Amino acid sequence: MFQVVRNSPKPLGDQLVEEVTRLIESGRLPEGFRLPSVRQLARRAGVSAYTVTTAFQRLSAKGLIEARAGSGYFVARIRRQAARVELGPAPSLDPVLGFTRNLLEQENVVVPAGSGFLPPEWLAEGIPSATLSRFGKSGAAVESATLQGDVQLRELLAERLRLANIPVAAQNLVVTFGASHAFDLIATTLLRPGDAVLVEDPSYFVLPAQLRSRGLRVIPVPRLPDGADLDALEAAAKLHQPRMMFTQTLLHNPTSTSASPARCHGILKLAERYNFLVTEDNIYTDIASPHSVSLAQIDELQRVIYVGSFTKVLGPGLRIGFVATRDELLRPLIEGKLLGVLSGSALVEFVLREVLDSGKYRRHIERLRDRVAKARAEASRALASAGLLIESSGGEGIFLWTRLPSHVEPDRLALDAQAQGILLAKGALFSPTGECGDCLRFNVAYAADPLLIRFLSSRTGARAEA
Amino acid sequence: MFQVVRNSPKPLGDQLVEEVTRLIESGRLPEGFRLPSVRQLARRAGVSAYTVTTAFQRLSAKGLIEARAGSGYFVARIRRQAARVELGPAPSLDPVLGFTRNLLEQENVVVPAGSGFLPPEWLAEGIPSATLSRFGKSGAAVESATLQGDVQLRELLAERLRLANIPVAAQNLVVTFGASHAFDLIATTLLRPGDAVLVEDPSYFVLPAQLRSRGLRVIPVPRLPDGADLDALEAAAKLHQPRMMFTQTLLHNPTSTSASPARCHGILKLAERYNFLVTEDNIYTDIASPHSVSLAQIDELQRVIYVGSFTKVLGPGLRIGFVATRDELLRPLIEGKLLGVLSGSALVEFVLREVLDSGKYRRHIERLRDRVAKARAEASRALASAGLLIESSGGEGIFLWTRLPSHVEPDRLALDAQAQGILLAKGALFSPTGECGDCLRFNVAYAADPLLIRFLSSRTGARAEA
Repeated sequence: MFQVVRNSPKPLGDQLVEEVTRLIESGRLPEGFRLPSVRQLARRAGVSAYTVTTAFQRLSAKGLIEARAGSGYFVARIRRQAARVELGPAPSLDPVLGFTRNLLEQENVVVPAGSGFLPPEWLAEGIPSATLSRFGKSGAAVESATLQGDVQLRELLAERLRLANIPVAAQNLVVTFGASHAFDLIATTLLRPGDAVLVEDPSYFVLPAQLRSRGLRVIPVPRLPDGADLDALEAAAKLHQPRMMFTQTLLHNPTSTSASPARCHGILKLAERYNFLVTEDNIYTDIASPHSVSLAQIDELQRVIYVGSFTKVLGPGLRIGFVATRDELLRPLIEGKLLGVLSGSALVEFVLREVLDSGKYRRHIERLRDRVAKARAEASRALASAGLLIESSGGEGIFLWTRLPSHVEPDRLALDAQAQGILLAKGALFSPTGECGDCLRFNVAYAADPLLIRFLSSRTGARAEA
Repeated sequence: MFQVVRNSPKPLGDQLVEEVTRLIESGRLPEGFRLPSVRQLARRAGVSAYTVTTAFQRLSAKGLIEARAGSGYFVARIRRQAARVELGPAPSLDPVLGFTRNLLEQENVVVPAGSGFLPPEWLAEGIPSATLSRFGKSGAAVESATLQGDVQLRELLAERLRLANIPVAAQNLVVTFGASHAFDLIATTLLRPGDAVLVEDPSYFVLPAQLRSRGLRVIPVPRLPDGADLDALEAAAKLHQPRMMFTQTLLHNPTSTSASPARCHGILKLAERYNFLVTEDNIYTDIASPHSVSLAQIDELQRVIYVGSFTKVLGPGLRIGFVATRDELLRPLIEGKLLGVLSGSALVEFVLREVLDSGKYRRHIERLRDRVAKARAEASRALASAGLLIESSGGEGIFLWTRLPSHVEPDRLALDAQAQGILLAKGALFSPTGECGDCLRFNVAYAADPLLIRFLSSRTGARAEA
């Protein structure tokens, strides 16, 4: 009894907890049985007293043993406990949402070629572990967050926006649980069910589903390499009288192209003429060229609502972003945030504030931009050698938007890839109209993987370099 | 130039950053000016090289200086930067939501007598700093969270529910950003605009506002000391054919009373007869007596949807909670979570998992329960001595529900209290019908404060013990 294996990969404490659990559940240690003292058990099992104490605490937490003051630990009264329910498969979801789950969870994925996130090891240096250790002393976990978000954090964010010539105060910012939360807040508080909204085609695939789920009418507008198709935009504005356009000026997902300043100007003129607001999704701005121009810079937040996030550049595990807007639109956004989630996480806000304030963030971003550029060049070469046509003309960003040769059937390809642990992102997903059927979006960090390149070449018939 | 004050409360690095900023902004250090080397400046200012390096990094992040490889730091080209916008007052909100903001932010509050949160120092031991330090190594910040929430965390949560005889698997749980997020998910995915929902009167005051904002018809049902008024419940069910009831069985907010098992049985019988679901808000269960009975235990999640949270017992800064439900209702909740916020925060989920798994959580809760009980006894005595009638008959929990003598006007009282830095929670807030006008909710942790007791006594005319 109470034996542990010293050179097992399983921690000694875990072994002890499992051993005692087994002995109790099998009935070998009956109710009321007095366990050996910490010191006795430590000696018998050959582990430290600390290991035993911790194991006893965990067993208490599970309700299996209980401490009696002054006399040690005893096997607890067996409480009539609901039977353990076996873990079934996760419920199946709507296809687009199911794909989103795959992207997030990457179960059974060896090569996440279609992923929207950069590799964790590229991001790890962005949040120094010293920052994380400071939590404990900060008290951030036990204080409630402020409604709009930590004011020092908002000051830092506003300062960064002002450096980009966007005139905002901390007061104009509402911190959110990432960009998705920001879009949903905008959709539910600044728009009404039945309103028409313009969305680029192709676009980030969760967005149209989000908007539709809030009762909005999603009107697609073709996205050209240098921004929205202005003729189509004007025609849609005339026909549907939209209340808002959603657009991604810089490093557009999935094409990684950026809108030209002239195109930005054109969009804003149409927004004025047809009286609609513009939500600008700027989540890739930190890895775009510093000379890029965004709608918010030209418009100075008159018609434009700016959405930012740190998911792409610091890590999806934080889930933090923000909305910046002019004063008049703030109240509904703040009220909507309160009614939806009450407040943000003071803990997460603390981490982001520390990171931005340390000055190391800028260096992290510069390194990340270099890394993305190198991977992009390599991935472009590899995918071209595998017989794919590179459609993206932007030359920067984390995505490559590619076209398959006409003899390759995309649905079949994606299914076969999945069977080999390769996650592909099919073009049709990104298109509200179902266009882009023969396109694929690749993440530059994973797209030169030899397994992927061999698989693609075998389907296109190309003689790949891999 | 570059002088710092050694015995100032302001950290030396902050002083250095401010000094250099001032010199640059005033034009005394012109564009292109080469700053002293790190070593020179450290010597001149009498600080460590580390302090100077960090200050330079922060100044770079602000765009004020720039490093040139091999030759040091220079004052950066002055970028046309949007002018700093002065921080105005936060936008005014709907009264109930504005009060919620006061509760969260407690600006200018000396005695947060009406607060819904326990004091940070009572909660601090719940999250050991060792847990927080483990973050850095865990990689949790740079990995994306899974859609339903970390599976090990859900296993731990499910185990705790099974110990309370609620038969669930990890698969039946959806992790949320706290209970408010859970209510909103339920309201938007399991209900439709126009549906009638039953809410206890009085109740947690944000809930009716949340439900109304999603287009639901809120029907109040009186809450008696031992649970909902069954006659009124049946009459409302007949008349309005509600789709759902929201109830807080244990340590109900604001009264701190718990429903009796018989009353729970009665509610479930009516739910069956009139075919409505029940959302049970169980966020205080961990500080309730272990012998308490909840609806979910009796019903085994057939009609009951269980909402839990760690805001009250571990700290509002985490923002984490969960919904537990039977299989059939999972899909809409998961899809709704994805469409609203994409996923949770892997970072926050990591902290909660570590805390629950460490076994220290149980001891924290026991200590917290004792502390609440002692404070409650003391606060009851003090408030009674100040001339208030204690309405709560439950005898446990963090709230005291009290009634003012008839000659004291509550609105006037709350305003005068505010002027003295005392935050009061007026009864009318908690009542969808506007009843409870002469009641006040007190947080037991703050309600024996001499400042508060003196203030209340001066208004009621009582000779307080304080």
